[in-house]
Amino acid sequence: MLTIQRLSLADARTLIEGARVRAAEIGVPMCIAVTDESGQLIAFERMDGGKVTSTTIAQDKAFTAAGAKRTTESYWEASQPGKPAYGINSAIGGRLLVVAGGIPVIVDGQVVGAVGVSSGTPAQDSDCAQAGIDLFLAGLSASEKS
Amino acid sequence: MLTIQRLSLADARTLIEGARVRAAEIGVPMCIAVTDESGQLIAFERMDGGKVTSTTIAQDKAFTAAGAKRTTESYWEASQPGKPAYGINSAIGGRLLVVAGGIPVIVDGQVVGAVGVSSGTPAQDSDCAQAGIDLFLAGLSASEKS
Amino acid sequence: MLTIQRLSLADARTLIEGARVRAAEIGVPMCIAVTDESGQLIAFERMDGGKVTSTTIAQDKAFTAAGAKRTTESYWEASQPGKPAYGINSAIGGRLLVVAGGIPVIVDGQVVGAVGVSSGTPAQDSDCAQAGIDLFLAGLSASEKS
Amino acid sequence: MLTIQRLSLADARTLIEGARVRAAEIGVPMCIAVTDESGQLIAFERMDGGKVTSTTIAQDKAFTAAGAKRTTESYWEASQPGKPAYGINSAIGGRLLVVAGGIPVIVDGQVVGAVGVSSGTPAQDSDCAQAGIDLFLAGLSASEKS
Repeated sequence: MLTIQRLSLADARTLIEGARVRAAEIGVPMCIAVTDESGQLIAFERMDGGKVTSTTIAQDKAFTAAGAKRTTESYWEASQPGKPAYGINSAIGGRLLVVAGGIPVIVDGQVVGAVGVSSGTPAQDSDCAQAGIDLFLAGLSASEKS
Repeated sequence: MLTIQRLSLADARTLIEGARVRAAEIGVPMCIAVTDESGQLIAFERMDGGKVTSTTIAQDKAFTAAGAKRTTESYWEASQPGKPAYGINSAIGGRLLVVAGGIPVIVDGQVVGAVGVSSGTPAQDSDCAQAGIDLFLAGLSASEKS
Repeated sequence: MLTIQRLSLADARTLIEGARVRAAEIGVPMCIAVTDESGQLIAFERMDGGKVTSTTIAQDKAFTAAGAKRTTESYWEASQPGKPAYGINSAIGGRLLVVAGGIPVIVDGQVVGAVGVSSGTPAQDSDCAQAGIDLFLAGLSASEKS
Repeated sequence: MLTIQRLSLADARTLIEGARVRAAEIGVPMCIAVTDESGQLIAFERMDGGKVTSTTIAQDKAFTAAGAKRTTESYWEASQPGKPAYGINSAIGGRLLVVAGGIPVIVDGQVVGAVGVSSGTPAQDSDCAQAGIDLFLAGLSASEKS
């Protein structure tokens, strides 16, 4: 038997909050998804004005980051023409996303879930996903100190 | 040109809150999805312990209720063997759900979105979805009075 | 954060062994799948002569039993015409199976994975899946005693 | 009428064992799939820590290698921009994989099945798949001598 750590719904809300606050700061309404470590959806929010296509893309970015234990941005580099993972973007029915914006949430060296953001530029998406993780990890750190 | 009324993210959160409070009362951790009037996901939450299979089913119940402008439960009756809509359950790649738990949100006679709930019995799912709608409509009514 | 117990690959092999030995006893070559508690495949074997269609069905039975935390057989009863879950069989792209042969593996009251078996009659499939679980639980019990 | 040579379940286990031993040597927990010559799954194992996304990718690499009777790596070259098979990676719903790690098993000049490995770099995946084939062919050769 294996013992696994996984995000709770409360954790997922914190991750979404951090991403949403950052999205509001930069003025881009985002779709924000949080999955557990197996890539299964825990929570999702589409900010008013977020893109319809991004409801799927945000979820699949989080699925990819959790399932493959790496950022979707790292696949972008690795899947360029001539690079080893070229062509991987159409795997799993196209759910494997290689566009920036999916980032695994890592606690004590283990992937416990992931955030996926979509509707802006890939750089904006990634920035907001990271803001969600920053807020979450800051909360974890604060609770450990208390 | 058409003007459409549609749930906002704030509305979706209220709908989820109402469903979640009811789910907690009956002790069943639920997956709760809210879509807009086009069946596109606005918000989703899987309560800790909610079923993995229900992450998809809750979303598809809301999709069905919004898109078809009727409860999934009404399809249950209409799709029994020998009834006119028999076989409709496998339509749209199986996304059209005929099990109770998807309810359209109706304001001023127009469908503005839908709630889909899954993880309990169909009756429990439907009860929680209705509780979400009740909370939302109570808020609308209160704001009109003030 | 949540802490989850999950089957290991060694556990999955034991579950398959138990099902396979029973399948050999009754003379039916089976497809046998084991998933973790999120419905993700850990191990699979198609015995020589097992059915090609059953490679998918066995996996989806295990996915259903793990994800929904109940036997696929329990859905068979609940999804008959006129019963509450009627029509659920086409959910999740048809992956939600209501035919006997998918059984969750429960340890200390928690679903830690599931076994799905297919190629025989539903009763034979279910019998073999249970034989896998029996062998696994006997091993757990023995290790606790030592 | 045609007579087909095809891997047995015992053969598939040997192929998985060879890949798994190599994966352990390089310290990368892999998903390992073996299909028959028609691309149908015979056996699968996800080593503890293998990637969730790789459960599908490993199977689809083996499917591609068996069905197309060539390594997925050979498609990587042929599908680069400007090359004849450009765009083939999204064929068959994305199941046709052009990333290294899928290798056909060839006996007496005939494809009898394939191995697909995923979770490491494409080079690591391919190395482990080949190790599985090496162990299998060594066993065939030994039995012919005895």
